[in-house]
Amino acid sequence: MRIDGRANDELRRVTIERNYTKYAEGSVLISVGDTKVLCTASVTEGVPPFLRGKGEGWVTAEYGLLPRSTGTRCDREAVKGKQSGRTQEIQRLIGRSLRAVVDRKKLGEFTIQLDCDVIQADGGTRCASITGAWVALRDAANWMMERKLLAEDPILAQVSAISVGMWSGEPALDFNYAEDSSSDTDMNVVMTSLGGFVEIQGTAEGKPFTEDELTELIKLAKKGNEQLQAIQRNSF
Amino acid sequence: MRIDGRANDELRRVTIERNYTKYAEGSVLISVGDTKVLCTASVTEGVPPFLRGKGEGWVTAEYGLLPRSTGTRCDREAVKGKQSGRTQEIQRLIGRSLRAVVDRKKLGEFTIQLDCDVIQADGGTRCASITGAWVALRDAANWMMERKLLAEDPILAQVSAISVGMWSGEPALDFNYAEDSSSDTDMNVVMTSLGGFVEIQGTAEGKPFTEDELTELIKLAKKGNEQLQAIQRNSF
Amino acid sequence: MRIDGRANDELRRVTIERNYTKYAEGSVLISVGDTKVLCTASVTEGVPPFLRGKGEGWVTAEYGLLPRSTGTRCDREAVKGKQSGRTQEIQRLIGRSLRAVVDRKKLGEFTIQLDCDVIQADGGTRCASITGAWVALRDAANWMMERKLLAEDPILAQVSAISVGMWSGEPALDFNYAEDSSSDTDMNVVMTSLGGFVEIQGTAEGKPFTEDELTELIKLAKKGNEQLQAIQRNSF
Amino acid sequence: MRIDGRANDELRRVTIERNYTKYAEGSVLISVGDTKVLCTASVTEGVPPFLRGKGEGWVTAEYGLLPRSTGTRCDREAVKGKQSGRTQEIQRLIGRSLRAVVDRKKLGEFTIQLDCDVIQADGGTRCASITGAWVALRDAANWMMERKLLAEDPILAQVSAISVGMWSGEPALDFNYAEDSSSDTDMNVVMTSLGGFVEIQGTAEGKPFTEDELTELIKLAKKGNEQLQAIQRNSF
Amino acid sequence: MRIDGRANDELRRVTIERNYTKYAEGSVLISVGDTKVLCTASVTEGVPPFLRGKGEGWVTAEYGLLPRSTGTRCDREAVKGKQSGRTQEIQRLIGRSLRAVVDRKKLGEFTIQLDCDVIQADGGTRCASITGAWVALRDAANWMMERKLLAEDPILAQVSAISVGMWSGEPALDFNYAEDSSSDTDMNVVMTSLGGFVEIQGTAEGKPFTEDELTELIKLAKKGNEQLQAIQRNSF
Amino acid sequence: MRIDGRANDELRRVTIERNYTKYAEGSVLISVGDTKVLCTASVTEGVPPFLRGKGEGWVTAEYGLLPRSTGTRCDREAVKGKQSGRTQEIQRLIGRSLRAVVDRKKLGEFTIQLDCDVIQADGGTRCASITGAWVALRDAANWMMERKLLAEDPILAQVSAISVGMWSGEPALDFNYAEDSSSDTDMNVVMTSLGGFVEIQGTAEGKPFTEDELTELIKLAKKGNEQLQAIQRNSF
Repeated sequence: MRIDGRANDELRRVTIERNYTKYAEGSVLISVGDTKVLCTASVTEGVPPFLRGKGEGWVTAEYGLLPRSTGTRCDREAVKGKQSGRTQEIQRLIGRSLRAVVDRKKLGEFTIQLDCDVIQADGGTRCASITGAWVALRDAANWMMERKLLAEDPILAQVSAISVGMWSGEPALDFNYAEDSSSDTDMNVVMTSLGGFVEIQGTAEGKPFTEDELTELIKLAKKGNEQLQAIQRNSF
Repeated sequence: MRIDGRANDELRRVTIERNYTKYAEGSVLISVGDTKVLCTASVTEGVPPFLRGKGEGWVTAEYGLLPRSTGTRCDREAVKGKQSGRTQEIQRLIGRSLRAVVDRKKLGEFTIQLDCDVIQADGGTRCASITGAWVALRDAANWMMERKLLAEDPILAQVSAISVGMWSGEPALDFNYAEDSSSDTDMNVVMTSLGGFVEIQGTAEGKPFTEDELTELIKLAKKGNEQLQAIQRNSF
Repeated sequence: MRIDGRANDELRRVTIERNYTKYAEGSVLISVGDTKVLCTASVTEGVPPFLRGKGEGWVTAEYGLLPRSTGTRCDREAVKGKQSGRTQEIQRLIGRSLRAVVDRKKLGEFTIQLDCDVIQADGGTRCASITGAWVALRDAANWMMERKLLAEDPILAQVSAISVGMWSGEPALDFNYAEDSSSDTDMNVVMTSLGGFVEIQGTAEGKPFTEDELTELIKLAKKGNEQLQAIQRNSF
Repeated sequence: MRIDGRANDELRRVTIERNYTKYAEGSVLISVGDTKVLCTASVTEGVPPFLRGKGEGWVTAEYGLLPRSTGTRCDREAVKGKQSGRTQEIQRLIGRSLRAVVDRKKLGEFTIQLDCDVIQADGGTRCASITGAWVALRDAANWMMERKLLAEDPILAQVSAISVGMWSGEPALDFNYAEDSSSDTDMNVVMTSLGGFVEIQGTAEGKPFTEDELTELIKLAKKGNEQLQAIQRNSF
Repeated sequence: MRIDGRANDELRRVTIERNYTKYAEGSVLISVGDTKVLCTASVTEGVPPFLRGKGEGWVTAEYGLLPRSTGTRCDREAVKGKQSGRTQEIQRLIGRSLRAVVDRKKLGEFTIQLDCDVIQADGGTRCASITGAWVALRDAANWMMERKLLAEDPILAQVSAISVGMWSGEPALDFNYAEDSSSDTDMNVVMTSLGGFVEIQGTAEGKPFTEDELTELIKLAKKGNEQLQAIQRNSF
Repeated sequence: MRIDGRANDELRRVTIERNYTKYAEGSVLISVGDTKVLCTASVTEGVPPFLRGKGEGWVTAEYGLLPRSTGTRCDREAVKGKQSGRTQEIQRLIGRSLRAVVDRKKLGEFTIQLDCDVIQADGGTRCASITGAWVALRDAANWMMERKLLAEDPILAQVSAISVGMWSGEPALDFNYAEDSSSDTDMNVVMTSLGGFVEIQGTAEGKPFTEDELTELIKLAKKGNEQLQAIQRNSF
């Protein structure tokens, strides 16, 4: 039996609220249970130096935890003067995941910057960030097309992410913070709506996992991502 | 006539939503027109080194803009590796303003950390932060008293802040961003519910202001702060 | 009775020594009692990126305390790797105060950088910096006009600053460090020689101040600034 | 056909040279093809603050590229003043992988610090670092046991890592840099000698991978890790 | 013929003004020609961690250039966020030079911190810093002895420093900035009043120097240091 | 008698291994006793901003200690976020020493970057770095000439460095770490193959040295450098 009474293959309640703030070209508040992340997409002309003149665009992401999004206040990274290794790892993951569903040639020399700021953290913030950021990205691309900044839609597919892991010896979907803290393995699986895997990051904090467990976890993640992508579509 | 049609002595619509997030001992979302700030209060045992062993508590604040809280995305300070001068100036102001209404002896050796994170910025973010942070502070002190961590209430009075300035040659209350950008003077006035001035910060960006204008602006600020303090009280 | 025997409306002894060092286009040592600040003005062609091509100049300031300018040695900010919030707040104030009396169109695309370095700190360093920096700025503008770098004088008026506050329940002018440490309120008032207020920054460290006290303090500051501006003129 | 003529399931030539430098408690130079990494293990008494008094030890890792270990010189991170996101991600991975095979209770309040410095980089540096660091860790634990610092062996199993990916549509083992740059997917698989998976990090840079490809890649990684672990054993 | 008309073995005019500022335990303004350095000595109880409990004291130095001490304004290191390599090299040299004439056992567990801040730079700032800092150090030690903080005098000898170099093919003493910029070699020689060499730092910017030139330069430096030490003594 | 049994004028065993790594234009592993330094030379087109358009090249150096190159692990500078004063002092010395034997006009607008990374440190790392870096520089210049990037050889002479100091009252050559730690004086002498002195850096940690000792030390350093330069030549 899971901590919050869910079945092993059951997502927490997910809501997606578009146009959450007024300035960004895409602005989404995603809630996955008590995890709440504000994902904004900002469009700017131009690309980073390493891409200049190649006729390609860029999609990148930054991630942050508000100091009291967590049970115990975490230090503000702007005060510490640097982002932690964890933060950088997460924002690199978000960026790669979104780029996997963007045709950067079709984007032209524009940059779309995703900002994922966690308002409340109850496990699964990196997955919620990816799922929410895709909706913000979709809105930003629509905004660009309405203004004729793009000739063609650069978004190739949806992308979403969910965590799976072993809970009391059974594969389980979408850990909250309490489950995450007491489980042995945690795997984040990023998938597109075309069925492909974009990222798989599995870590065995305690007991290493077996090949069979791996197969089961992958299957569960697939199911979870299909549901998330349906919720993404329903938000429009 | 003001940009959004308000009278010169009229506040924007102000709402205060308590218990906005679940972990913090005080958590308030304040909206002043389109300016939205999340203010959380975090209680921890102990005080900074310079106060240890004096039997006094500490109240301090940090401030941040989410990257796309503004019309044009601003760089994330955690990525730049330092807080700007503006950010530090604002968070020092918030901290001083709140300490002015706290009896630090009665707080004992506890620290209350206020975090003011701007979700959407449309002028007046530092004033909204002070006004909202006081409500979060009040909730945190109540939380401490319920748990018998404090023998007596350390909060001496309410505190709030509002901006005033010269608009088309007339004193006006509570500038939004568009007004702020095109006005000559801007003054932030922090007052307690006992009628005293805690901070006055007036800056003439363009034309210096006269002694008479100063008197008028102060009068207007008094009126605005009285209204804000009524809204603070009504939020409980 | 004040600590050093002055009347409540009496400035400390103020001296201004021009051409204190040999390289700067303006170089002034200002003493206000035992507070001594070296203010230099450096002229360079060009302006910061945000002003390029607008045909306007820029005036900006930096501030520093020599490590043993104070009673207890303060850490060198270059070693700590960052300027404190207090330092940044002060240098922003100095810059704004000077820009208030400069016609930046007449300055053309030049930058004048003021450096205010405190040799000895006995209260009122930010006010002394503003008062001294104006003299250095005046010298730098003269230097530019002599070299025909400017067609017209860009300096619109004098600017100076003085602190006022409540001392034993009475308004008093120009606190030294001992007075500042034991007073309830402290207000820095920046005024031009045309009688306008450029900045008012009042902070009630202890007891908030009333509207009447505010009126008295402003009156006193006006008197102090008029005297300082006479001393500025006499230094030429 | 692969770039260097290997079969798809063939490792590059791997050598492990123990006692490569004289001061470290474990010091290993591992070569995997032209990738060369110096892995040292340093033993110190005590643990980081978050573990103090719990009777457990700590194992952690740092990673660095020598500036000209790469085809084009990369900037020295000590000069840039911070470690890149990539570096932090890799050193976190190495640390987690090694901790997965250490009984931290048996280690007692000691820290073993692994340093993985890349002398020459030709693809697969993070995997080579894990594989080499385990040998250095094993040597350091032996050193501690010889000195009676440990009552029991804290090392539970071997751990190694290898990359797999899709090469010209086929699963292939152990990419060199040229293959890595031109392949669609890259997966690093960390396994113990007991057959469990510790980490799986798969990234589809181009085309997402399918469930079947995933199964094939895992199988190949298993084979590669078994060979690496045999080489680890033979190095003693 | 030298730029300012001096003979090759002639020092610039040197003045030493003690008690230049009021807070420091030693405070000296040294002028060597147009080079002016403020040297303060600050006494604090306690020593850095690496010396604790050894019954020895510590003497250390920091160095800084005021931004407009130089012909072209140099950036403020506190703003850049770090000290340059040159600055660190100089302050390490000053510290070592002073420690060479201190019996750290006799100093007990006190730290004397020397701050050398250059008000005006016209060549030879590091040498002037050492020469002036010794006088500040001497004053600080006297201050400690008067207060019975020290049982015995910890100062073993005087120390001073002077630059020498090849000027138009001839050895010359005490370069100013113009000479320094156009000479081939520059050597800073630190000597005690007992005749010993504490530091010799010779750099051939252009043509390497010969063994004979070296001998001549050393002789000249000896003469210069003897004169500086007489001036140090006369300042008391 | 010296710690490792050498005669006072005897170098440790020196080996130079060229082409140690495969990417750099010059790559040398130099061993001086147990001190091992990897010196690489990287050629890039273009020069730093201060040299642009002058038709001259640049030669510069960076230095680093691998964390466990030393007896006790030293912190990784990339993690600390800055290079120590010692590191910066050494890399400035290496750069100046190499530039002394380069005709920068003949180099044209190219930069040669030397990286000296210490694999194992047993005293004399800065001297070994200079001696090894010259060989890498020579190889890089040859590489450029083979590719017709240079019309003429820009290398004017060999350069090498050795330490000398007083050991038990006698001048001795090439201290190892144990000797260095227990000796009174340490002098690093950099010489060209034309017999000139490029740098002399002598520091008396304990007893200042006399003029006679200085003469003896210089003589010894000359002998050592002549031997090192023979070894440099024999490495080709």
